[in-house]
Amino acid sequence: MNLSMVTDLYELSMANGYQQALEKEDGVFDVFFRHVPDDGSFVITAGLAQAIQAVSDFHFDEKDLAYLKNLDLFTDNFLNFLKKFKFSGNISAIPEGTPVFPREPLLTISGPLIETQLFETILLNIVNHQSLIATKARRICYAAQGMPIMEFGARRAQGPSAATLGARAAIIGGCASTSNLLAAEKFGLTVAGTMAHSWIEAFPNELSAFEKWAELYPDNSSLLVDTYDVVSSGVPNAIKVFQKLEEKGHKPIGIRIDSGDIAHLSKLARKMLDDAGFSEAKITASNALDETTIQSLLFSQGAPIDNFGVGEELITSASDPVLSGVYKLVAIKKEGKIIPKIKISDSREKVTLPGIKQLYRLYKKGTRQAFADVIALKEERLSKRMLVKSADPLDTKQNINLMDFDLETLQTNIFEKGKIVYSSPTVQQIKKVSQQSLSELPEETKRLKNPNKYPVYITEKLAKLQDELLNDQEY
Amino acid sequence: MNLSMVTDLYELSMANGYQQALEKEDGVFDVFFRHVPDDGSFVITAGLAQAIQAVSDFHFDEKDLAYLKNLDLFTDNFLNFLKKFKFSGNISAIPEGTPVFPREPLLTISGPLIETQLFETILLNIVNHQSLIATKARRICYAAQGMPIMEFGARRAQGPSAATLGARAAIIGGCASTSNLLAAEKFGLTVAGTMAHSWIEAFPNELSAFEKWAELYPDNSSLLVDTYDVVSSGVPNAIKVFQKLEEKGHKPIGIRIDSGDIAHLSKLARKMLDDAGFSEAKITASNALDETTIQSLLFSQGAPIDNFGVGEELITSASDPVLSGVYKLVAIKKEGKIIPKIKISDSREKVTLPGIKQLYRLYKKGTRQAFADVIALKEERLSKRMLVKSADPLDTKQNINLMDFDLETLQTNIFEKGKIVYSSPTVQQIKKVSQQSLSELPEETKRLKNPNKYPVYITEKLAKLQDELLNDQEY
Repeated sequence: MNLSMVTDLYELSMANGYQQALEKEDGVFDVFFRHVPDDGSFVITAGLAQAIQAVSDFHFDEKDLAYLKNLDLFTDNFLNFLKKFKFSGNISAIPEGTPVFPREPLLTISGPLIETQLFETILLNIVNHQSLIATKARRICYAAQGMPIMEFGARRAQGPSAATLGARAAIIGGCASTSNLLAAEKFGLTVAGTMAHSWIEAFPNELSAFEKWAELYPDNSSLLVDTYDVVSSGVPNAIKVFQKLEEKGHKPIGIRIDSGDIAHLSKLARKMLDDAGFSEAKITASNALDETTIQSLLFSQGAPIDNFGVGEELITSASDPVLSGVYKLVAIKKEGKIIPKIKISDSREKVTLPGIKQLYRLYKKGTRQAFADVIALKEERLSKRMLVKSADPLDTKQNINLMDFDLETLQTNIFEKGKIVYSSPTVQQIKKVSQQSLSELPEETKRLKNPNKYPVYITEKLAKLQDELLNDQEY
Repeated sequence: MNLSMVTDLYELSMANGYQQALEKEDGVFDVFFRHVPDDGSFVITAGLAQAIQAVSDFHFDEKDLAYLKNLDLFTDNFLNFLKKFKFSGNISAIPEGTPVFPREPLLTISGPLIETQLFETILLNIVNHQSLIATKARRICYAAQGMPIMEFGARRAQGPSAATLGARAAIIGGCASTSNLLAAEKFGLTVAGTMAHSWIEAFPNELSAFEKWAELYPDNSSLLVDTYDVVSSGVPNAIKVFQKLEEKGHKPIGIRIDSGDIAHLSKLARKMLDDAGFSEAKITASNALDETTIQSLLFSQGAPIDNFGVGEELITSASDPVLSGVYKLVAIKKEGKIIPKIKISDSREKVTLPGIKQLYRLYKKGTRQAFADVIALKEERLSKRMLVKSADPLDTKQNINLMDFDLETLQTNIFEKGKIVYSSPTVQQIKKVSQQSLSELPEETKRLKNPNKYPVYITEKLAKLQDELLNDQEY
């Protein structure tokens, strides 16, 4: 699959036009979002490694070019440009795994308009998708409070790449393992899984199916107990097999319950296992679980569950399956001059932040406690005390004084003049850094329901630029 | 991307076990679903062409085999089997584009257990995803009642294959065109699209951006009018450009509104266009539309919209982003004998239909008016009058007499002894057949809200088999 062609036609129509009308202009585009899925407070960024690959692999082969020529929309000059396409611009980005907030520039792409326009669809596709799933995984892992989450949604994912890249994002967001072999192979993830109901059904009865499994995989004996009846059949049969395993010197792993009332059944199963002397055997729960059911099972219902397998709700972010990241032109560079650009909307909330910007995370002085982010113009030098405005024009308190902080910039250079100057960490490293960044955020902004809004400010200079463009835009 | 590895680990663990424990057994698996997304009455099947490809391409290369060996779970004999894998069994399926109902076997896969188990994850992934999107597209097209729907969700799709295969499914479900170039190229779809806000912003003002566009694409002048202000700027500027186009002998196409109150703005824009003599210029609406907003715009609010561009709501089926198709063992063949199999559940509704089955659609005699489907055992010959039971055990009326019908089987042979015996139609052909099948369904089952349930029956013989297995299952 040539990802360069996973592109809306209009990107090419515009680029074809830019070549004729604005050939010398450079464009600067920001990727950002306005709304966090599930009314959360932040998104976990993900997908940068694949975004980098898409940009560096960007090309059109002979078959594609013949198809495009046939559309009869493009000049030969433009098709020739596509044939030789090689990105010559710059990209900066916030590293994967970082918690990010509305309006913050996740990626900034600059370079000839004709080049930078072409990346819109594929970069949004990759970053929106993986950030969505990493964000959902963060919510589910938060609900499970340290109990391991196994991602196993491949069969309900929206196509093969949603399964595989979604598994990658799920690990970045905090999951322990995935059932998806390709994702595990490709990204060095821990792979997990045991048996389906078909294994049980294929044998004359449940006990012989369990026995055979334990014989083949004596050290991986997590038995699926709900094919016929958890309490009267599944758990008693599992206990019989565990006893034999123990006699042979193996440690029984546990059971999995995949249907019925998980809270009720897990309590009954726990008691049966304990009574039989298998208090160390784990109980794994699955079946359309999400952060709400996991929180309810563990904390409202006190279900004795040790591991969760999470499928469709995670791999599609089913409760809110879209992260609406956008790719907006924020500046044009022409003959060395930067002309900031704005997209105006009926709703003040949706007016874009113009210009080339830098994002800072502020920590209480001498600590790692993040308390606000500030978006500034790139050329600004921040002072130790500053008056800032809320980035959200709907906030009541608009003018804030900031002092006593340490600050860090969040963006990193990825491409410089078309060359990759960044090496993506492994998924496990990204996950670790993500957990660290999360630990630096205020607790109240991490809760699942009605999280406290984390403050994102813009500098006075940026606010002034936005106001000017808003009022002076020539139509 | 090797789709064979987009597979849950447990499929391989089970297959490895089958090789040692049940090497001579054949398995028969059905793919079916229990619940229709958005509480609809039926699903539009899609994805069969890609499912066929996944089965015929199924293989493990050296790198995959080395990875699998490293997991230390599989015998050398099994890894050797994977290395030489070639499907030797049979698959039958309901052709793409067919409206199908809960419990109906969409695909039936039979052959050595060790082979058939391996396809579970990837077949479900492909068929669940595309059927989900085709079903959503059907709903959206139904709401638009013949007005063309343009799919343009690539940037919000869950990864590149969700964008591309989703576009394919959207056309099967009734959409007119897609913005996705790869989908259009690969599947022979109509491609559509014009400009983004960035085109407008890149120029000194809106009018010069429109003028340049009209100069470059005089016959593709659909102008995006909401970058600054639809009424005070976008439409007046579009009209100026349309006047020039007309002077030069070109027909202005129309405008697109992508934000704000679409109903209100489209009415104002329509009047302005009409007053300026451009009553044939079309109005296209976009911006997070779905079947509910389209129905409301057209029928409750009388918005004068001619085309719809639908993005994230369609490409993710955002209101219900999961089709929960399952892959269930329904029979084991051993030494020529067929042993039907059942998955039991606490809920009677979820008990599976055992055995190898045939699906019939019944039409009122001498017409093409479908009125019910019947699931029978494959070896049964249906009589002209028959007593059947509801396939849904929760239905009040359980026993029904059927007479005066014509019938057709819905499944087709796809693989016979490992060989493909079916040639997939083009997407346009599938769409056409789908529209025909839809026209044969009762009107009341097609509406979006509280559709009338279309009757699906099982034969007495199948009902009896299910009862026997349910009561006699040995644990």
